[in-house]
Amino acid sequence: MSLIENLNWRHAVKAYDSTKKVSQEDLDKILEAARLAPTSSGLQPFRIIVVENQELKEKMVKGALNPEVMRDCSQVLVFAAWDSYSDEKIDKVYDHHTDVRDLPRGRFSSYTDKIKELYNGQTKEEHFAHTARQSYIALGLAMAQAAELKVDSTPAEGFSNAVVDEILNLKELGLKSVTLLYLGYRDSTNDYLAHMKKVRIPMEEFIIRR
Amino acid sequence: MSLIENLNWRHAVKAYDSTKKVSQEDLDKILEAARLAPTSSGLQPFRIIVVENQELKEKMVKGALNPEVMRDCSQVLVFAAWDSYSDEKIDKVYDHHTDVRDLPRGRFSSYTDKIKELYNGQTKEEHFAHTARQSYIALGLAMAQAAELKVDSTPAEGFSNAVVDEILNLKELGLKSVTLLYLGYRDSTNDYLAHMKKVRIPMEEFIIRR
Repeated sequence: MSLIENLNWRHAVKAYDSTKKVSQEDLDKILEAARLAPTSSGLQPFRIIVVENQELKEKMVKGALNPEVMRDCSQVLVFAAWDSYSDEKIDKVYDHHTDVRDLPRGRFSSYTDKIKELYNGQTKEEHFAHTARQSYIALGLAMAQAAELKVDSTPAEGFSNAVVDEILNLKELGLKSVTLLYLGYRDSTNDYLAHMKKVRIPMEEFIIRR
Repeated sequence: MSLIENLNWRHAVKAYDSTKKVSQEDLDKILEAARLAPTSSGLQPFRIIVVENQELKEKMVKGALNPEVMRDCSQVLVFAAWDSYSDEKIDKVYDHHTDVRDLPRGRFSSYTDKIKELYNGQTKEEHFAHTARQSYIALGLAMAQAAELKVDSTPAEGFSNAVVDEILNLKELGLKSVTLLYLGYRDSTNDYLAHMKKVRIPMEEFIIRR
Protein backbone atom coordinates (compact mmCIF):
# COMPACT_ATOMS: atom_id res chain seq x y z
CA MET A 1 0.00 0.00 0.00
CA SER A 2 1.11 3.55 -0.69
CA LEU A 3 1.93 6.07 2.01
CA ILE A 4 -1.33 7.92 1.30
CA GLU A 5 -3.34 4.72 1.66
CA ASN A 6 -1.54 3.98 4.92
CA LEU A 7 -2.20 7.49 6.24
CA ASN A 8 -5.86 7.12 5.38
CA TRP A 9 -5.95 3.75 7.16
CA ARG A 10 -4.49 5.02 10.42
CA HIS A 11 -6.20 7.02 13.11
CA ALA A 12 -5.37 7.91 16.68
CA VAL A 13 -6.65 4.76 18.33
CA LYS A 14 -8.57 5.38 21.55
CA ALA A 15 -8.84 1.81 22.86
CA TYR A 16 -6.33 -1.03 22.58
CA ASP A 17 -6.71 -4.78 22.86
CA SER A 18 -4.42 -5.50 25.80
CA THR A 19 -3.99 -9.14 24.79
CA LYS A 20 -2.19 -8.34 21.54
CA LYS A 21 1.49 -7.46 21.41
CA VAL A 22 3.45 -5.79 18.62
CA SER A 23 6.22 -8.16 17.55
CA GLN A 24 9.89 -7.32 18.00
CA GLU A 25 10.30 -7.38 14.21
CA ASP A 26 7.58 -4.79 13.65
CA LEU A 27 8.78 -2.68 16.56
CA ASP A 28 12.30 -2.67 15.12
CA LYS A 29 11.00 -1.35 11.78
CA ILE A 30 9.05 1.42 13.49
CA LEU A 31 12.15 2.46 15.42
CA GLU A 32 14.26 2.27 12.25
CA ALA A 33 11.91 4.66 10.41
CA ALA A 34 12.27 7.10 13.32
CA ARG A 35 16.05 6.70 13.28
CA LEU A 36 16.14 7.50 9.57
CA ALA A 37 14.19 10.73 10.06
CA PRO A 38 16.10 13.78 8.86
CA THR A 39 16.97 16.38 11.48
CA SER A 40 18.54 19.81 11.51
CA SER A 41 22.25 19.47 10.63
CA GLY A 42 21.82 15.70 11.03
CA LEU A 43 22.24 15.98 14.79
CA GLN A 44 19.34 13.66 15.71
CA PRO A 45 18.92 15.57 18.98
CA PHE A 46 16.43 13.20 20.59
CA ARG A 47 16.11 9.63 21.75
CA ILE A 48 13.29 7.12 21.96
CA ILE A 49 12.65 5.29 25.19
CA VAL A 50 10.77 2.03 24.62
CA VAL A 51 8.59 1.17 27.58
CA GLU A 52 7.12 -2.33 27.63
CA ASN A 53 7.19 -2.98 31.37
CA GLN A 54 3.64 -2.84 32.71
CA GLU A 55 4.70 -1.50 36.11
CA LEU A 56 6.51 1.42 34.50
CA LYS A 57 3.49 2.13 32.30
CA GLU A 58 1.29 2.17 35.41
CA LYS A 59 3.55 4.79 36.95
CA MET A 60 3.52 6.93 33.80
CA VAL A 61 -0.30 6.89 33.75
CA LYS A 62 -0.38 9.60 36.44
CA GLY A 63 -1.39 12.76 34.62
CA ALA A 64 -2.12 11.03 31.30
CA LEU A 65 -5.19 12.13 29.37
CA ASN A 66 -5.98 8.58 28.25
CA PRO A 67 -4.83 6.26 31.06
CA GLU A 68 -6.55 3.21 29.55
CA VAL A 69 -4.71 3.69 26.28
CA MET A 70 -1.37 3.82 28.12
CA ARG A 71 -2.27 0.70 30.13
CA ASP A 72 -3.63 -1.42 27.29
CA CYS A 73 -1.23 -0.58 24.49
CA SER A 74 1.61 -2.92 23.63
CA GLN A 75 4.52 -0.47 23.90
CA VAL A 76 4.90 3.19 24.77
CA LEU A 77 7.53 5.05 22.77
CA VAL A 78 8.70 8.16 24.59
CA PHE A 79 10.20 10.75 22.27
CA ALA A 80 12.60 12.74 24.42
CA ALA A 81 14.72 15.60 23.10
CA TRP A 82 18.12 16.89 24.19
CA ASP A 83 17.70 19.53 26.87
CA SER A 84 20.45 21.55 25.14
CA TYR A 85 23.09 21.60 22.41
CA SER A 86 26.79 21.64 23.22
CA ASP A 87 30.06 21.63 21.31
CA GLU A 88 30.77 18.16 22.66
CA LYS A 89 27.48 16.72 21.45
CA ILE A 90 27.97 18.23 18.00
CA ASP A 91 31.54 16.91 17.76
CA LYS A 92 30.43 13.45 18.78
CA VAL A 93 27.85 13.28 15.99
CA TYR A 94 30.22 14.63 13.35
CA ASP A 95 33.08 12.38 14.45
CA HIS A 96 30.71 9.50 13.84
CA HIS A 97 29.79 10.94 10.42
CA THR A 98 33.40 11.22 9.29
CA ASP A 99 34.30 7.80 10.73
CA VAL A 100 31.46 6.08 8.86
CA ARG A 101 32.35 7.93 5.67
CA ASP A 102 36.07 7.20 5.96
CA LEU A 103 36.87 10.90 6.06
CA PRO A 104 39.31 12.63 8.39
CA ARG A 105 37.77 13.91 11.61
CA GLY A 106 37.16 17.63 11.37
CA ARG A 107 36.32 17.40 7.67
CA PHE A 108 33.10 19.32 8.31
CA SER A 109 34.54 21.73 10.88
CA SER A 110 33.78 24.88 8.90
CA TYR A 111 30.13 23.87 9.12
CA THR A 112 30.17 22.63 12.71
CA ASP A 113 31.96 25.82 13.80
CA LYS A 114 29.01 27.76 12.39
CA ILE A 115 26.36 25.73 14.16
CA LYS A 116 28.33 25.78 17.42
CA GLU A 117 28.47 29.56 17.21
CA LEU A 118 24.74 29.70 16.52
CA TYR A 119 23.82 27.49 19.46
CA ASN A 120 26.33 29.06 21.84
CA GLY A 121 24.44 32.33 21.29
CA GLN A 122 21.14 30.77 22.34
CA THR A 123 19.56 29.87 25.68
CA LYS A 124 18.86 26.29 26.77
CA GLU A 125 15.15 27.04 26.31
CA GLU A 126 15.80 27.95 22.68
CA HIS A 127 17.82 24.76 22.26
CA PHE A 128 15.02 22.59 23.59
CA ALA A 129 12.41 24.37 21.48
CA HIS A 130 14.51 23.38 18.47
CA THR A 131 15.40 19.82 19.50
CA ALA A 132 11.76 19.11 20.38
CA ARG A 133 10.60 20.21 16.93
CA GLN A 134 12.98 17.77 15.25
CA SER A 135 11.47 14.87 17.16
CA TYR A 136 8.07 15.45 15.52
CA ILE A 137 9.51 14.49 12.13
CA ALA A 138 10.45 11.11 13.57
CA LEU A 139 7.12 10.82 15.36
CA GLY A 140 5.33 11.20 12.03
CA LEU A 141 7.54 8.68 10.26
CA ALA A 142 7.16 6.17 13.10
CA MET A 143 3.36 6.44 12.73
CA ALA A 144 3.63 6.00 8.97
CA GLN A 145 5.80 2.91 9.45
CA ALA A 146 3.38 1.48 12.00
CA ALA A 147 0.53 2.02 9.53
CA GLU A 148 2.50 0.28 6.77
CA LEU A 149 2.70 -2.76 9.08
CA LYS A 150 -0.96 -2.40 10.10
CA VAL A 151 0.14 -1.70 13.64
CA ASP A 152 -2.07 0.85 15.36
CA SER A 153 -0.67 3.88 17.09
CA THR A 154 -1.73 6.94 19.03
CA PRO A 155 0.44 10.04 19.24
CA ALA A 156 0.02 11.82 22.55
CA GLU A 157 1.03 15.12 24.07
CA GLY A 158 -1.53 14.67 26.85
CA PHE A 159 0.60 13.35 29.68
CA SER A 160 2.66 14.72 32.54
CA ASN A 161 6.15 15.55 31.28
CA ALA A 162 7.31 15.90 34.89
CA VAL A 163 6.07 12.41 35.80
CA VAL A 164 7.53 10.74 32.72
CA ASP A 165 10.88 12.54 33.02
CA GLU A 166 11.11 11.55 36.66
CA ILE A 167 10.14 7.90 36.22
CA LEU A 168 12.50 7.37 33.30
CA ASN A 169 15.34 9.40 34.85
CA LEU A 170 15.50 11.51 31.72
CA LYS A 171 17.16 14.49 33.41
CA GLU A 172 20.34 12.58 34.07
CA LEU A 173 20.40 11.59 30.40
CA GLY A 174 20.12 15.24 29.35
CA LEU A 175 16.69 14.56 27.86
CA LYS A 176 13.18 15.95 28.28
CA SER A 177 10.04 14.12 27.16
CA VAL A 178 8.16 15.66 24.22
CA THR A 179 5.57 13.19 22.94
CA LEU A 180 4.44 9.62 23.43
CA LEU A 181 3.50 7.14 20.76
CA TYR A 182 1.33 4.29 21.93
CA LEU A 183 1.59 1.15 19.79
CA GLY A 184 -0.65 -1.88 19.65
CA TYR A 185 -3.81 -3.25 18.09
CA ARG A 186 -7.14 -1.50 18.25
CA ASP A 187 -10.08 -2.74 20.26
CA SER A 188 -12.68 -1.88 17.62
CA THR A 189 -15.62 -2.33 19.99
CA ASN A 190 -14.42 0.32 22.41
CA ASP A 191 -12.50 2.63 20.09
CA TYR A 192 -15.13 5.28 19.31
CA LEU A 193 -12.93 6.76 16.58
CA ALA A 194 -12.59 3.45 14.71
CA HIS A 195 -15.95 3.88 13.02
CA MET A 196 -15.80 7.61 12.35
CA LYS A 197 -14.88 9.11 9.03
CA LYS A 198 -11.42 10.66 8.88
CA VAL A 199 -11.70 14.43 8.61
CA ARG A 200 -9.18 16.87 7.24
CA ILE A 201 -9.64 20.45 6.11
CA PRO A 202 -10.23 20.69 2.35
CA MET A 203 -7.12 20.91 0.17
CA GLU A 204 -8.15 24.33 -1.18
CA GLU A 205 -8.05 25.71 2.36
CA PHE A 206 -4.90 23.88 3.38
CA ILE A 207 -2.83 25.03 0.41
CA ILE A 208 -2.07 28.57 -0.66
CA ARG A 209 -0.64 28.89 -4.16
CA ARG A 210 1.66 31.75 -5.03
CA MET B 1 9.31 0.21 -2.13
CA SER B 2 8.80 0.28 1.61
CA LEU B 3 8.95 3.41 3.72
CA ILE B 4 12.34 2.36 5.11
CA GLU B 5 13.73 1.86 1.60
CA ASN B 6 12.37 5.27 0.60
CA LEU B 7 13.91 6.92 3.66
CA ASN B 8 17.24 5.31 2.85
CA TRP B 9 16.96 6.53 -0.74
CA ARG B 10 16.33 10.16 0.15
CA HIS B 11 18.83 12.73 1.34
CA ALA B 12 18.79 16.49 1.72
CA VAL B 13 19.69 17.37 -1.87
CA LYS B 14 22.20 20.22 -2.13
CA ALA B 15 21.97 20.93 -5.88
CA TYR B 16 18.95 20.73 -8.17
CA ASP B 17 18.62 20.39 -11.93
CA SER B 18 16.75 23.58 -12.75
CA THR B 19 15.46 22.17 -16.05
CA LYS B 20 13.34 19.48 -14.39
CA LYS B 21 9.94 20.21 -12.90
CA VAL B 22 7.90 18.12 -10.48
CA SER B 23 4.58 17.27 -12.12
CA GLN B 24 1.28 18.55 -10.77
CA GLU B 25 0.24 14.96 -10.11
CA ASP B 26 3.28 14.25 -7.93
CA LEU B 27 3.03 17.62 -6.19
CA ASP B 28 -0.61 16.91 -5.34
CA LYS B 29 0.35 13.60 -3.70
CA ILE B 30 3.05 15.27 -1.63
CA LEU B 31 0.57 17.89 -0.45
CA GLU B 32 -2.01 15.21 0.27
CA ALA B 33 0.41 13.32 2.52
CA ALA B 34 1.02 16.55 4.42
CA ARG B 35 -2.71 17.20 4.67
CA LEU B 36 -3.27 13.74 6.13
CA ALA B 37 -0.66 14.31 8.85
CA PRO B 38 -2.10 13.93 12.34
CA THR B 39 -2.01 17.02 14.54
CA SER B 40 -2.85 17.85 18.12
CA SER B 41 -6.65 17.68 18.56
CA GLY B 42 -6.90 17.44 14.77
CA LEU B 43 -6.63 21.21 14.45
CA GLN B 44 -4.13 21.20 11.55
CA PRO B 45 -2.81 24.57 12.75
CA PHE B 46 -0.61 25.30 9.75
CA ARG B 47 -0.81 25.86 6.04
CA ILE B 48 1.48 25.14 3.09
CA ILE B 49 2.27 27.89 0.64
CA VAL B 50 3.35 26.50 -2.72
CA VAL B 51 5.78 28.83 -4.45
CA GLU B 52 6.53 28.07 -8.10
CA ASN B 53 6.96 31.62 -9.37
CA GLN B 54 10.63 32.25 -10.06
CA GLU B 55 10.44 35.94 -9.18
CA LEU B 56 8.99 35.16 -5.79
CA LYS B 57 11.68 32.54 -5.22
CA GLU B 58 14.33 35.13 -6.09
CA LYS B 59 12.92 37.44 -3.44
CA MET B 60 12.85 34.71 -0.82
CA VAL B 61 16.52 33.90 -1.48
CA LYS B 62 17.55 36.86 0.67
CA GLY B 63 18.86 35.36 3.88
CA ALA B 64 18.68 31.75 2.68
CA LEU B 65 21.54 29.44 3.57
CA ASN B 66 21.44 27.69 0.20
CA PRO B 67 20.33 30.29 -2.36
CA GLU B 68 21.13 28.06 -5.34
CA VAL B 69 18.92 25.32 -3.98
CA MET B 70 16.03 27.78 -3.62
CA ARG B 71 16.61 29.10 -7.16
CA ASP B 72 17.04 25.77 -8.94
CA CYS B 73 14.41 23.65 -7.24
CA SER B 74 11.07 23.04 -8.89
CA GLN B 75 8.79 24.23 -6.07
CA VAL B 76 9.28 25.66 -2.61
CA LEU B 77 6.78 24.50 -0.01
CA VAL B 78 6.55 26.95 2.86
CA PHE B 79 5.22 25.36 6.04
CA ALA B 80 3.64 28.21 7.99
CA ALA B 81 1.93 27.76 11.34
CA TRP B 82 -0.92 29.65 12.98
CA ASP B 83 0.44 32.55 15.00
CA SER B 84 -2.11 31.70 17.71
CA TYR B 85 -5.08 29.58 18.67
CA SER B 86 -8.53 31.09 19.20
CA ASP B 87 -12.01 29.86 20.08
CA GLU B 88 -13.17 30.83 16.58
CA LYS B 89 -10.46 28.79 14.84
CA ILE B 90 -11.21 25.76 17.02
CA ASP B 91 -14.95 26.03 16.37
CA LYS B 92 -14.38 26.34 12.64
CA VAL B 93 -12.39 23.09 12.54
CA TYR B 94 -14.86 21.18 14.71
CA ASP B 95 -17.90 22.47 12.82
CA HIS B 96 -16.26 21.02 9.74
CA HIS B 97 -15.66 17.74 11.58
CA THR B 98 -19.29 17.38 12.66
CA ASP B 99 -20.59 18.47 9.24
CA VAL B 100 -18.48 15.85 7.43
CA ARG B 101 -19.50 13.18 9.93
CA ASP B 102 -23.20 14.08 9.81
CA LEU B 103 -23.23 14.88 13.49
CA PRO B 104 -24.88 17.86 15.17
CA ARG B 105 -22.59 20.86 15.58
CA GLY B 106 -21.32 21.06 19.14
CA ARG B 107 -21.17 17.26 19.43
CA PHE B 108 -17.56 17.53 20.65
CA SER B 109 -18.07 20.65 22.76
CA SER B 110 -17.04 19.03 26.04
CA TYR B 111 -13.67 18.39 24.40
CA THR B 112 -13.35 21.70 22.59
CA ASP B 113 -14.29 23.57 25.79
CA LYS B 114 -11.29 21.91 27.43
CA ILE B 115 -8.81 22.82 24.70
CA LYS B 116 -10.17 26.36 24.50
CA GLU B 117 -9.61 26.73 28.23
CA LEU B 118 -6.09 25.34 27.85
CA TYR B 119 -5.14 27.71 25.03
CA ASN B 120 -6.86 30.72 26.56
CA GLY B 121 -4.50 30.31 29.51
CA GLN B 122 -1.42 30.45 27.26
CA THR B 123 0.46 33.24 25.54
CA LYS B 124 0.63 33.66 21.76
CA GLU B 125 4.27 32.58 21.97
CA GLU B 126 3.24 29.32 23.59
CA HIS B 127 0.60 28.85 20.91
CA PHE B 128 3.09 29.29 18.10
CA ALA B 129 5.62 26.98 19.78
CA HIS B 130 2.90 24.34 19.68
CA THR B 131 1.51 24.98 16.20
CA ALA B 132 5.03 25.04 14.74
CA ARG B 133 5.80 21.62 16.24
CA GLN B 134 2.75 20.11 14.56
CA SER B 135 3.95 21.24 11.16
CA TYR B 136 7.08 19.07 11.45
CA ILE B 137 4.94 15.92 11.37
CA ALA B 138 3.60 17.03 7.99
CA LEU B 139 7.07 18.06 6.83
CA GLY B 140 8.33 14.53 7.49
CA LEU B 141 5.40 12.89 5.73
CA ALA B 142 5.75 15.21 2.72
CA MET B 143 9.41 14.14 2.41
CA ALA B 144 8.44 10.48 2.71
CA GLN B 145 5.82 10.94 -0.01
CA ALA B 146 8.30 12.72 -2.26
CA ALA B 147 10.75 9.85 -1.77
CA GLU B 148 8.05 7.30 -2.65
CA LEU B 149 7.65 9.15 -5.97
CA LYS B 150 11.42 9.47 -6.41
CA VAL B 151 11.08 13.22 -6.16
CA ASP B 152 14.01 14.82 -4.37
CA SER B 153 13.53 17.20 -1.50
CA THR B 154 15.47 19.33 0.95
CA PRO B 155 14.03 20.40 4.28
CA ALA B 156 15.32 23.79 5.35
CA GLU B 157 15.25 25.94 8.45
CA GLY B 158 18.09 28.07 7.09
CA PHE B 159 16.23 31.05 5.66
CA SER B 160 14.98 34.42 6.83
CA ASN B 161 11.57 33.99 8.43
CA ALA B 162 11.10 37.76 8.32
CA VAL B 163 11.78 37.92 4.57
CA VAL B 164 9.53 34.98 3.73
CA ASP B 165 6.69 36.17 5.99
CA GLU B 166 6.88 39.61 4.42
CA ILE B 167 7.03 38.47 0.80
CA LEU B 168 4.17 36.02 1.19
CA ASN B 169 2.07 38.38 3.36
CA LEU B 170 1.81 35.68 5.99
CA LYS B 171 1.06 38.06 8.85
CA GLU B 172 -2.29 39.04 7.41
CA LEU B 173 -3.13 35.36 7.10
CA GLY B 174 -2.33 34.81 10.78
CA LEU B 175 0.61 32.61 9.82
CA LYS B 176 4.35 32.52 10.53
CA SER B 177 6.84 30.55 8.42
CA VAL B 178 8.48 27.57 10.13
CA THR B 179 10.29 25.46 7.53
CA LEU B 180 10.76 25.19 3.80
CA LEU B 181 10.73 22.06 1.71
CA TYR B 182 12.48 22.36 -1.63
CA LEU B 183 11.26 19.89 -4.25
CA GLY B 184 12.80 18.88 -7.55
CA TYR B 185 15.33 16.55 -9.11
CA ARG B 186 18.92 16.29 -8.00
CA ASP B 187 21.85 17.51 -10.04
CA SER B 188 24.08 14.56 -9.16
CA THR B 189 27.23 16.21 -10.49
CA ASN B 190 26.99 19.17 -8.16
CA ASP B 191 25.20 17.63 -5.20
CA TYR B 192 28.12 16.74 -2.93
CA LEU B 193 25.83 14.74 -0.66
CA ALA B 194 24.54 12.52 -3.47
CA HIS B 195 27.60 10.29 -3.29
CA MET B 196 28.07 10.21 0.46
CA LYS B 197 26.92 7.39 2.65
CA LYS B 198 23.86 8.14 4.76
CA VAL B 199 24.85 8.36 8.41
CA ARG B 200 22.66 7.87 11.44
CA ILE B 201 23.62 7.20 15.01
CA PRO B 202 23.59 3.48 15.82
CA MET B 203 20.29 1.99 16.94
CA GLU B 204 21.71 0.97 20.33
CA GLU B 205 22.48 4.63 21.05
CA PHE B 206 19.25 5.98 19.62
CA ILE B 207 16.98 3.67 21.60
CA ILE B 208 16.77 3.28 25.35
CA ARG B 209 14.86 0.20 26.52
CA ARG B 210 13.06 0.21 29.85
